[in-house]
Amino acid sequence: MENEKIIGVVGGMGPYAGLDLVRKIFDHTEAGADADHLPVALLSYPARVPDRTAFLLGRSDENPAEAIAAMAVALDRLGAVVAGMPCNTAHAPRIFDAVLARLREEAPRLRLLNMIDETIRFLREEHGNCTRIGVLATLGAYRTRLHADALEAAGLEAILPDENVQETIVHRTIYDPSYGLKAHMNPVSMIARQSLVSAVEHLREQGAEAVLLACTELPLALPEPELDGTPLIDPTLALARALIRETYPEKLKPL
Amino acid sequence: MENEKIIGVVGGMGPYAGLDLVRKIFDHTEAGADADHLPVALLSYPARVPDRTAFLLGRSDENPAEAIAAMAVALDRLGAVVAGMPCNTAHAPRIFDAVLARLREEAPRLRLLNMIDETIRFLREEHGNCTRIGVLATLGAYRTRLHADALEAAGLEAILPDENVQETIVHRTIYDPSYGLKAHMNPVSMIARQSLVSAVEHLREQGAEAVLLACTELPLALPEPELDGTPLIDPTLALARALIRETYPEKLKPL
Repeated sequence: MENEKIIGVVGGMGPYAGLDLVRKIFDHTEAGADADHLPVALLSYPARVPDRTAFLLGRSDENPAEAIAAMAVALDRLGAVVAGMPCNTAHAPRIFDAVLARLREEAPRLRLLNMIDETIRFLREEHGNCTRIGVLATLGAYRTRLHADALEAAGLEAILPDENVQETIVHRTIYDPSYGLKAHMNPVSMIARQSLVSAVEHLREQGAEAVLLACTELPLALPEPELDGTPLIDPTLALARALIRETYPEKLKPL
Repeated sequence: MENEKIIGVVGGMGPYAGLDLVRKIFDHTEAGADADHLPVALLSYPARVPDRTAFLLGRSDENPAEAIAAMAVALDRLGAVVAGMPCNTAHAPRIFDAVLARLREEAPRLRLLNMIDETIRFLREEHGNCTRIGVLATLGAYRTRLHADALEAAGLEAILPDENVQETIVHRTIYDPSYGLKAHMNPVSMIARQSLVSAVEHLREQGAEAVLLACTELPLALPEPELDGTPLIDPTLALARALIRETYPEKLKPL
Protein backbone atom coordinates (compact mmCIF):
# COMPACT_ATOMS: atom_id res chain seq x y z
CA MET A 1 0.00 0.00 0.00
CA GLU A 2 1.32 3.42 -0.84
CA ASN A 3 2.25 5.48 2.17
CA GLU A 4 1.23 2.72 4.53
CA LYS A 5 3.13 3.07 7.78
CA ILE A 6 3.45 -0.31 9.44
CA ILE A 7 4.03 -0.36 13.19
CA GLY A 8 6.44 -3.11 14.25
CA VAL A 9 6.31 -4.80 17.62
CA VAL A 10 9.34 -6.70 18.93
CA GLY A 11 7.46 -9.12 21.15
CA GLY A 12 8.06 -12.21 23.23
CA MET A 13 9.47 -10.39 26.28
CA GLY A 14 7.15 -11.73 27.58
CA PRO A 15 4.59 -12.93 25.07
CA TYR A 16 1.61 -11.40 26.85
CA ALA A 17 3.32 -8.02 27.02
CA GLY A 18 3.65 -8.06 23.23
CA LEU A 19 -0.06 -8.79 22.91
CA ASP A 20 -0.86 -6.10 25.45
CA LEU A 21 1.00 -3.50 23.39
CA VAL A 22 -0.87 -4.46 20.21
CA ARG A 23 -4.20 -4.37 22.05
CA LYS A 24 -3.42 -0.91 23.41
CA ILE A 25 -2.53 0.32 19.91
CA PHE A 26 -5.94 -0.90 18.72
CA ASP A 27 -7.78 0.45 21.79
CA HIS A 28 -6.28 3.93 21.39
CA THR A 29 -7.01 4.22 17.65
CA GLU A 30 -10.14 6.01 16.44
CA ALA A 31 -11.79 3.35 14.27
CA GLY A 32 -15.32 2.62 13.14
CA ALA A 33 -14.55 -0.39 10.95
CA ASP A 34 -11.79 -2.97 10.46
CA ALA A 35 -10.10 -0.94 7.74
CA ASP A 36 -9.69 2.09 10.02
CA HIS A 37 -7.27 0.19 12.25
CA LEU A 38 -3.53 0.65 11.88
CA PRO A 39 -1.20 -1.85 10.21
CA VAL A 40 0.75 -3.75 12.85
CA ALA A 41 3.27 -6.59 12.63
CA LEU A 42 4.09 -8.50 15.82
CA LEU A 43 7.02 -10.92 16.06
CA SER A 44 6.95 -12.97 19.24
CA TYR A 45 9.89 -15.36 19.33
CA PRO A 46 10.48 -15.74 23.07
CA ALA A 47 12.84 -18.72 22.92
CA ARG A 48 15.30 -16.70 20.83
CA VAL A 49 15.76 -13.92 23.39
CA PRO A 50 18.01 -14.65 26.37
CA ASP A 51 16.71 -13.40 29.72
CA ARG A 52 17.40 -9.69 30.07
CA THR A 53 17.86 -9.62 33.82
CA ALA A 54 20.25 -12.60 33.82
CA PHE A 55 22.51 -10.70 31.40
CA LEU A 56 22.38 -7.41 33.30
CA LEU A 57 23.19 -9.13 36.60
CA GLY A 58 26.18 -10.92 35.07
CA ARG A 59 24.61 -14.37 35.44
CA SER A 60 24.88 -14.83 31.67
CA ASP A 61 27.24 -13.46 29.04
CA GLU A 62 24.67 -13.66 26.28
CA ASN A 63 23.49 -10.20 25.32
CA PRO A 64 19.84 -10.37 24.23
CA ALA A 65 20.57 -7.45 21.87
CA GLU A 66 21.48 -9.81 19.02
CA ALA A 67 18.12 -11.57 18.98
CA ILE A 68 16.21 -8.33 19.54
CA ALA A 69 18.01 -6.59 16.69
CA ALA A 70 17.34 -9.54 14.39
CA MET A 71 13.59 -9.23 15.07
CA ALA A 72 13.73 -5.48 14.46
CA VAL A 73 15.55 -6.04 11.17
CA ALA A 74 12.87 -8.55 10.14
CA LEU A 75 10.23 -5.92 10.93
CA ASP A 76 12.09 -3.41 8.79
CA ARG A 77 12.11 -5.90 5.90
CA LEU A 78 8.34 -6.29 6.32
CA GLY A 79 7.98 -2.56 5.81
CA ALA A 80 7.76 -1.27 9.38
CA VAL A 81 8.72 2.40 9.68
CA VAL A 82 8.62 2.57 13.46
CA ALA A 83 8.85 -0.11 16.13
CA GLY A 84 8.42 -0.60 19.84
CA MET A 85 9.70 -3.20 22.23
CA PRO A 86 7.45 -3.84 25.22
CA CYS A 87 10.14 -4.86 27.69
CA ASN A 88 11.51 -2.27 30.10
CA THR A 89 14.58 -4.26 31.09
CA ALA A 90 15.68 -4.60 27.46
CA HIS A 91 16.00 -0.80 27.42
CA ALA A 92 19.01 -0.93 29.77
CA PRO A 93 21.81 0.79 27.83
CA ARG A 94 24.03 -2.32 27.66
CA ILE A 95 21.24 -3.99 25.68
CA PHE A 96 19.39 -1.13 23.99
CA ASP A 97 22.48 0.70 22.73
CA ALA A 98 23.76 -2.52 21.17
CA VAL A 99 20.41 -2.97 19.41
CA LEU A 100 20.52 0.60 18.08
CA ALA A 101 24.09 0.15 16.87
CA ARG A 102 23.12 -2.87 14.84
CA LEU A 103 20.03 -1.14 13.45
CA ARG A 104 22.17 1.77 12.28
CA GLU A 105 24.03 -0.75 10.13
CA GLU A 106 21.26 -3.01 8.99
CA ALA A 107 18.01 -1.06 9.15
CA PRO A 108 18.89 2.64 9.29
CA ARG A 109 15.39 3.81 8.36
CA LEU A 110 13.56 1.95 11.13
CA ARG A 111 12.90 4.13 14.18
CA LEU A 112 12.89 2.04 17.35
CA LEU A 113 11.16 4.14 19.99
CA ASN A 114 12.55 4.18 23.51
CA MET A 115 9.83 3.06 25.90
CA ILE A 116 11.54 4.59 28.94
CA ASP A 117 11.71 8.01 27.28
CA GLU A 118 8.11 7.71 26.14
CA THR A 119 7.02 6.80 29.65
CA ILE A 120 8.66 9.87 31.12
CA ARG A 121 7.12 12.04 28.41
CA PHE A 122 3.69 10.54 29.21
CA LEU A 123 4.25 11.07 32.92
CA ARG A 124 5.04 14.74 32.44
CA GLU A 125 2.16 15.32 30.04
CA GLU A 126 -0.51 13.47 32.01
CA HIS A 127 0.74 13.68 35.60
CA GLY A 128 2.76 16.88 35.55
CA ASN A 129 1.99 17.53 39.20
CA CYS A 130 3.76 14.35 40.37
CA THR A 131 7.46 14.71 41.08
CA ARG A 132 8.20 11.80 43.43
CA ILE A 133 7.88 8.70 41.30
CA GLY A 134 7.92 5.15 42.62
CA VAL A 135 9.34 2.40 40.42
CA LEU A 136 8.44 -1.30 40.31
CA ALA A 137 10.69 -3.22 37.93
CA THR A 138 12.82 -6.34 37.52
CA LEU A 139 15.98 -6.81 39.51
CA GLY A 140 17.99 -6.10 36.34
CA ALA A 141 16.35 -2.71 35.87
CA TYR A 142 16.60 -1.97 39.61
CA ARG A 143 20.30 -2.75 39.96
CA THR A 144 21.22 -0.83 36.81
CA ARG A 145 19.04 2.12 37.95
CA LEU A 146 17.43 2.12 34.50
CA HIS A 147 14.35 4.11 35.45
CA ALA A 148 15.89 5.93 38.39
CA ASP A 149 18.57 7.53 36.20
CA ALA A 150 16.03 8.46 33.53
CA LEU A 151 13.66 10.02 36.06
CA GLU A 152 16.46 11.99 37.69
CA ALA A 153 17.73 13.20 34.33
CA ALA A 154 14.22 14.56 33.78
CA GLY A 155 14.31 16.43 37.09
CA LEU A 156 12.07 13.96 38.92
CA GLU A 157 12.76 12.06 42.10
CA ALA A 158 12.90 8.27 41.85
CA ILE A 159 11.63 6.23 44.78
CA LEU A 160 12.76 2.63 44.69
CA PRO A 161 11.76 -0.27 46.94
CA ASP A 162 14.15 -1.34 49.66
CA GLU A 163 16.51 -4.05 48.44
CA ASN A 164 14.65 -6.62 50.49
CA VAL A 165 11.22 -5.68 49.10
CA GLN A 166 12.69 -5.58 45.61
CA GLU A 167 14.11 -9.08 45.81
CA THR A 168 11.54 -10.92 47.85
CA ILE A 169 8.38 -9.18 46.66
CA VAL A 170 8.75 -7.40 43.32
CA HIS A 171 11.17 -9.60 41.47
CA ARG A 172 9.59 -12.83 42.69
CA THR A 173 6.15 -11.62 41.65
CA ILE A 174 7.46 -11.43 38.10
CA TYR A 175 9.63 -14.56 37.99
CA ASP A 176 8.51 -17.07 40.62
CA PRO A 177 7.67 -20.35 38.86
CA SER A 178 4.83 -21.19 41.24
CA TYR A 179 2.93 -17.88 41.33
CA GLY A 180 4.86 -15.31 39.24
CA LEU A 181 3.48 -13.43 36.27
CA LYS A 182 5.75 -14.96 33.65
CA ALA A 183 4.48 -18.43 34.57
CA HIS A 184 0.87 -17.61 35.48
CA MET A 185 -0.72 -14.87 33.46
CA ASN A 186 -4.15 -16.21 32.79
CA PRO A 187 -5.40 -15.83 35.36
CA VAL A 188 -2.91 -13.82 37.41
CA SER A 189 -2.48 -15.48 40.81
CA MET A 190 -3.95 -13.80 43.86
CA ILE A 191 -0.56 -13.82 45.59
CA ALA A 192 1.05 -11.97 42.65
CA ARG A 193 -1.59 -9.29 42.68
CA GLN A 194 -1.50 -8.93 46.46
CA SER A 195 2.29 -8.69 46.42
CA LEU A 196 2.13 -5.83 43.94
CA VAL A 197 -0.53 -4.00 45.92
CA SER A 198 1.71 -4.19 48.98
CA ALA A 199 4.72 -3.01 46.95
CA VAL A 200 2.76 0.04 45.76
CA GLU A 201 1.87 0.71 49.40
CA HIS A 202 5.56 0.40 50.36
CA LEU A 203 6.47 3.07 47.76
CA ARG A 204 3.64 5.35 48.80
CA GLU A 205 4.82 5.18 52.42
CA GLN A 206 8.16 6.54 51.17
CA GLY A 207 6.40 9.44 49.50
CA ALA A 208 5.70 8.23 45.95
CA GLU A 209 2.99 10.35 44.30
CA ALA A 210 2.72 8.03 41.32
CA VAL A 211 4.13 4.56 40.60
CA LEU A 212 5.69 3.34 37.36
CA LEU A 213 4.68 -0.25 36.59
CA ALA A 214 8.05 -0.53 34.93
CA CYS A 215 8.03 -4.14 33.83
CA THR A 216 5.56 -4.90 31.06
CA GLU A 217 4.08 -7.85 32.97
CA LEU A 218 2.97 -5.57 35.81
CA PRO A 219 0.14 -3.64 34.10
CA LEU A 220 -1.39 -7.02 33.25
CA ALA A 221 -1.72 -7.73 36.96
CA LEU A 222 -2.61 -4.15 38.00
CA PRO A 223 -4.68 -2.84 35.06
CA GLU A 224 -6.41 -0.09 37.04
CA PRO A 225 -5.29 3.51 36.39
CA GLU A 226 -4.84 4.20 40.09
CA LEU A 227 -4.65 2.36 43.39
CA ASP A 228 -6.06 4.07 46.50
CA GLY A 229 -5.60 7.41 44.76
CA THR A 230 -2.03 6.80 43.56
CA PRO A 231 -1.74 6.91 39.75
CA LEU A 232 -0.23 3.77 38.25
CA ILE A 233 1.81 4.64 35.14
CA ASP A 234 1.73 2.04 32.38
CA PRO A 235 4.75 2.17 30.04
CA THR A 236 3.03 -0.15 27.55
CA LEU A 237 0.23 2.38 27.22
CA ALA A 238 2.72 5.21 26.81
CA LEU A 239 4.52 3.25 24.09
CA ALA A 240 1.28 2.32 22.30
CA ARG A 241 0.20 5.95 22.15
CA ALA A 242 3.66 7.04 20.98
CA LEU A 243 3.56 4.50 18.14
CA ILE A 244 0.20 5.90 16.97
CA ARG A 245 1.46 9.47 17.36
CA GLU A 246 4.51 8.71 15.19
CA THR A 247 2.47 7.11 12.38
CA TYR A 248 -1.17 8.24 12.30
CA PRO A 249 -1.46 11.05 14.89
CA GLU A 250 -4.87 12.05 13.55
CA LYS A 251 -6.21 8.70 14.74
CA LEU A 252 -4.91 8.94 18.33
CA LYS A 253 -7.87 8.85 20.72
CA PRO A 254 -7.91 11.56 23.37
CA LEU A 255 -7.25 10.20 26.86
CA MET B 1 16.80 -21.18 15.37
CA GLU B 2 17.17 -24.75 14.19
CA ASN B 3 13.90 -26.63 13.96
CA GLU B 4 11.94 -23.62 15.18
CA LYS B 5 8.39 -23.86 13.87
CA ILE B 6 6.93 -20.38 13.60
CA ILE B 7 3.13 -20.10 13.67
CA GLY B 8 1.86 -17.42 11.29
CA VAL B 9 -1.34 -15.48 11.88
CA VAL B 10 -3.04 -13.69 8.99
CA GLY B 11 -4.77 -11.00 11.03
CA GLY B 12 -6.73 -7.81 10.58
CA MET B 13 -10.09 -9.50 9.85
CA GLY B 14 -10.86 -7.92 12.25
CA PRO B 15 -7.87 -6.75 14.24
CA TYR B 16 -9.20 -7.96 17.59
CA ALA B 17 -9.88 -11.42 16.16
CA GLY B 18 -6.20 -11.67 15.20
CA LEU B 19 -5.19 -10.75 18.73
CA ASP B 20 -7.72 -13.19 20.16
CA LEU B 21 -6.16 -16.04 18.17
CA VAL B 22 -2.67 -15.20 19.39
CA ARG B 23 -3.90 -14.96 22.98
CA LYS B 24 -5.58 -18.36 22.70
CA ILE B 25 -2.36 -19.88 21.32
CA PHE B 26 -0.52 -18.55 24.38
CA ASP B 27 -3.30 -19.55 26.79
CA HIS B 28 -3.38 -23.14 25.53
CA THR B 29 0.41 -23.64 25.62
CA GLU B 30 2.04 -25.33 28.60
CA ALA B 31 4.62 -22.72 29.67
CA GLY B 32 6.39 -21.87 32.88
CA ALA B 33 8.61 -19.08 31.54
CA ASP B 34 8.75 -16.72 28.55
CA ALA B 35 11.00 -19.03 26.57
CA ASP B 36 8.52 -21.93 26.78
CA HIS B 37 6.00 -20.01 24.65
CA LEU B 38 5.70 -20.73 20.94
CA PRO B 39 7.08 -18.51 18.18
CA VAL B 40 4.25 -16.54 16.59
CA ALA B 41 4.20 -13.88 13.87
CA LEU B 42 1.04 -11.81 13.47
CA LEU B 43 0.45 -9.56 10.47
CA SER B 44 -2.56 -7.27 10.93
CA TYR B 45 -3.02 -5.06 7.87
CA PRO B 46 -6.78 -4.45 7.91
CA ALA B 47 -6.86 -1.64 5.34
CA ARG B 48 -5.36 -3.95 2.73
CA VAL B 49 -8.12 -6.56 2.91
CA PRO B 50 -11.42 -5.75 1.16
CA ASP B 51 -14.56 -6.68 3.09
CA ARG B 52 -15.24 -10.39 2.74
CA THR B 53 -19.03 -10.23 2.94
CA ALA B 54 -19.28 -7.41 0.36
CA PHE B 55 -17.39 -9.59 -2.11
CA LEU B 56 -19.44 -12.73 -1.43
CA LEU B 57 -22.72 -10.83 -1.79
CA GLY B 58 -21.63 -9.33 -5.12
CA ARG B 59 -21.50 -5.78 -3.76
CA SER B 60 -17.82 -5.61 -4.69
CA ASP B 61 -15.73 -7.30 -7.36
CA GLU B 62 -12.57 -7.15 -5.33
CA ASN B 63 -11.62 -10.60 -4.07
CA PRO B 64 -9.88 -10.28 -0.69
CA ALA B 65 -7.88 -13.39 -1.59
CA GLU B 66 -5.08 -11.31 -3.14
CA ALA B 67 -4.36 -9.36 0.03
CA ILE B 68 -4.78 -12.43 2.23
CA ALA B 69 -2.38 -14.47 0.10
CA ALA B 70 0.18 -11.66 0.16
CA MET B 71 0.13 -11.70 3.97
CA ALA B 72 0.49 -15.49 4.00
CA VAL B 73 3.44 -15.28 1.59
CA ALA B 74 5.08 -12.70 3.88
CA LEU B 75 4.60 -15.09 6.81
CA ASP B 76 6.23 -17.86 4.79
CA ARG B 77 9.21 -15.59 4.10
CA LEU B 78 9.48 -14.94 7.83
CA GLY B 79 9.83 -18.67 8.36
CA ALA B 80 6.28 -19.68 9.29
CA VAL B 81 5.60 -23.37 8.66
CA VAL B 82 1.90 -23.27 9.42
CA ALA B 83 -0.61 -20.42 9.47
CA GLY B 84 -4.15 -19.63 10.48
CA MET B 85 -6.57 -16.94 9.46
CA PRO B 86 -9.07 -15.97 12.13
CA CYS B 87 -11.92 -14.93 9.83
CA ASN B 88 -14.69 -17.42 9.09
CA THR B 89 -16.08 -15.56 6.10
CA ALA B 90 -12.68 -15.55 4.37
CA HIS B 91 -12.93 -19.35 4.32
CA ALA B 92 -15.75 -19.23 1.76
CA PRO B 93 -14.45 -21.26 -1.22
CA ARG B 94 -14.47 -18.31 -3.63
CA ILE B 95 -11.94 -16.62 -1.36
CA PHE B 96 -10.13 -19.47 0.38
CA ASP B 97 -9.55 -21.57 -2.74
CA ALA B 98 -8.04 -18.55 -4.49
CA VAL B 99 -5.70 -18.04 -1.53
CA LEU B 100 -4.64 -21.69 -1.61
CA ALA B 101 -4.05 -21.53 -5.37
CA ARG B 102 -1.69 -18.61 -4.98
CA LEU B 103 0.11 -20.26 -2.05
CA ARG B 104 0.72 -23.38 -4.14
CA GLU B 105 2.65 -21.13 -6.53
CA GLU B 106 4.40 -18.79 -4.16
CA ALA B 107 4.67 -20.53 -0.79
CA PRO B 108 4.16 -24.25 -1.36
CA ARG B 109 5.64 -25.26 1.99
CA LEU B 110 3.34 -23.11 4.14
CA ARG B 111 0.34 -25.02 5.45
CA LEU B 112 -2.65 -22.71 5.86
CA LEU B 113 -5.06 -24.52 8.17
CA ASN B 114 -8.79 -24.38 7.41
CA MET B 115 -10.60 -22.93 10.41
CA ILE B 116 -13.96 -24.34 9.37
CA ASP B 117 -12.57 -27.87 9.16
CA GLU B 118 -10.79 -27.43 12.48
CA THR B 119 -14.00 -26.19 14.09
CA ILE B 120 -15.92 -29.26 12.96
CA ARG B 121 -13.12 -31.50 14.16
CA PHE B 122 -13.21 -29.74 17.55
CA LEU B 123 -16.99 -30.04 17.69
CA ARG B 124 -16.88 -33.79 17.09
CA GLU B 125 -14.05 -34.35 19.56
CA GLU B 126 -15.40 -32.20 22.37
CA HIS B 127 -19.17 -32.23 21.77
CA GLY B 128 -19.67 -35.55 20.01
CA ASN B 129 -23.17 -35.89 21.46
CA CYS B 130 -24.44 -32.75 19.69
CA THR B 131 -25.79 -33.29 16.17
CA ARG B 132 -28.08 -30.27 15.63
CA ILE B 133 -25.72 -27.31 15.38
CA GLY B 134 -26.82 -23.67 15.30
CA VAL B 135 -24.71 -21.18 13.32
CA LEU B 136 -24.24 -17.46 13.92
CA ALA B 137 -22.17 -15.85 11.16
CA THR B 138 -21.97 -12.91 8.77
CA LEU B 139 -24.47 -12.51 5.95
CA GLY B 140 -21.75 -13.54 3.50
CA ALA B 141 -21.19 -16.86 5.28
CA TYR B 142 -24.95 -17.35 5.73
CA ARG B 143 -25.90 -16.79 2.10
CA THR B 144 -23.08 -18.98 0.78
CA ARG B 145 -23.98 -21.69 3.36
CA LEU B 146 -20.32 -21.84 4.34
CA HIS B 147 -20.82 -23.57 7.69
CA ALA B 148 -24.11 -25.26 6.79
CA ASP B 149 -22.51 -27.17 3.93
CA ALA B 150 -19.49 -28.13 6.02
CA LEU B 151 -21.67 -29.36 8.89
CA GLU B 152 -23.88 -31.38 6.57
CA ALA B 153 -20.87 -32.89 4.83
CA ALA B 154 -19.79 -34.06 8.28
CA GLY B 155 -23.17 -35.69 8.91
CA LEU B 156 -24.42 -32.97 11.24
CA GLU B 157 -27.57 -30.90 10.96
CA ALA B 158 -27.12 -27.14 10.50
CA ILE B 159 -29.66 -24.84 12.10
CA LEU B 160 -29.55 -21.32 10.70
CA PRO B 161 -31.40 -18.21 11.86
CA ASP B 162 -34.45 -17.10 9.89
CA GLU B 163 -33.49 -14.64 7.16
CA ASN B 164 -35.03 -11.81 9.15
CA VAL B 165 -33.11 -12.64 12.36
CA GLN B 166 -29.93 -13.08 10.32
CA GLU B 167 -30.19 -9.68 8.68
CA THR B 168 -31.63 -7.52 11.44
CA ILE B 169 -30.01 -9.16 14.47
CA VAL B 170 -26.89 -11.18 13.68
CA HIS B 171 -25.35 -9.27 10.81
CA ARG B 172 -26.08 -5.87 12.34
CA THR B 173 -24.53 -6.95 15.63
CA ILE B 174 -21.28 -7.49 13.76
CA TYR B 175 -21.35 -4.51 11.38
CA ASP B 176 -23.60 -1.75 12.74
CA PRO B 177 -21.52 1.44 13.02
CA SER B 178 -23.31 2.64 16.15
CA TYR B 179 -23.25 -0.54 18.28
CA GLY B 180 -21.70 -3.36 16.21
CA LEU B 181 -18.66 -5.36 17.21
CA LYS B 182 -16.38 -4.18 14.42
CA ALA B 183 -16.87 -0.58 15.56
CA HIS B 184 -17.18 -1.10 19.33
CA MET B 185 -15.08 -3.87 20.73
CA ASN B 186 -13.74 -2.38 23.90
CA PRO B 187 -16.09 -2.50 25.61
CA VAL B 188 -18.65 -4.50 23.66
CA SER B 189 -21.97 -2.64 23.68
CA MET B 190 -24.83 -3.98 25.77
CA ILE B 191 -27.10 -4.04 22.73
CA ALA B 192 -24.61 -6.20 20.79
CA ARG B 193 -24.36 -8.71 23.59
CA GLN B 194 -28.11 -8.82 24.16
CA SER B 195 -28.72 -9.29 20.45
CA LEU B 196 -26.42 -12.30 20.41
CA VAL B 197 -28.01 -13.81 23.49
CA SER B 198 -31.42 -13.54 21.79
CA ALA B 199 -30.01 -15.05 18.58
CA VAL B 200 -28.68 -18.05 20.52
CA GLU B 201 -32.15 -18.41 22.06
CA HIS B 202 -33.72 -18.26 18.59
CA LEU B 203 -31.48 -21.14 17.45
CA ARG B 204 -32.16 -23.18 20.58
CA GLU B 205 -35.92 -22.83 20.00
CA GLN B 206 -35.34 -24.45 16.62
CA GLY B 207 -33.57 -27.36 18.27
CA ALA B 208 -29.90 -26.36 18.27
CA GLU B 209 -27.93 -28.43 20.80
CA ALA B 210 -24.79 -26.31 20.40
CA VAL B 211 -24.13 -23.00 18.64
CA LEU B 212 -21.15 -22.12 16.46
CA LEU B 213 -19.98 -18.55 17.06
CA ALA B 214 -18.93 -18.59 13.44
CA CYS B 215 -17.64 -15.07 13.01
CA THR B 216 -14.42 -14.35 14.92
CA GLU B 217 -15.87 -11.20 16.46
CA LEU B 218 -18.61 -13.20 18.22
CA PRO B 219 -16.53 -15.07 20.83
CA LEU B 220 -15.22 -11.67 21.94
CA ALA B 221 -18.79 -10.68 22.86
CA LEU B 222 -19.85 -14.11 24.17
CA PRO B 223 -16.69 -15.50 25.80
CA GLU B 224 -18.50 -17.99 28.03
CA PRO B 225 -18.27 -21.69 27.09
CA GLU B 226 -22.04 -22.12 27.34
CA LEU B 227 -25.20 -20.07 27.59
CA ASP B 228 -28.12 -21.47 29.62
CA GLY B 229 -26.70 -24.95 29.11
CA THR B 230 -26.10 -24.65 25.35
CA PRO B 231 -22.41 -25.05 24.44
CA LEU B 232 -20.99 -22.12 22.45
CA ILE B 233 -18.36 -23.35 20.00
CA ASP B 234 -15.46 -20.94 19.41
CA PRO B 235 -13.70 -21.42 16.05
CA THR B 236 -10.83 -19.19 17.14
CA LEU B 237 -10.15 -21.57 20.02
CA ALA B 238 -10.37 -24.57 17.69
CA LEU B 239 -7.88 -22.93 15.32
CA ALA B 240 -5.50 -21.94 18.14
CA ARG B 241 -5.38 -25.50 19.43
CA ALA B 242 -4.92 -26.87 15.91
CA LEU B 243 -1.95 -24.54 15.34
CA ILE B 244 -0.29 -25.81 18.53
CA ARG B 245 -1.10 -29.42 17.64
CA GLU B 246 0.54 -28.99 14.22
CA THR B 247 3.75 -27.50 15.62
CA TYR B 248 4.39 -28.39 19.25
CA PRO B 249 1.73 -30.98 20.19
CA GLU B 250 3.59 -31.89 23.38
CA LYS B 251 2.86 -28.36 24.66
CA LEU B 252 -0.90 -28.42 24.02
CA LYS B 253 -2.73 -27.98 27.32
CA PRO B 254 -5.49 -30.47 28.01
CA LEU B 255 -8.97 -28.93 27.88
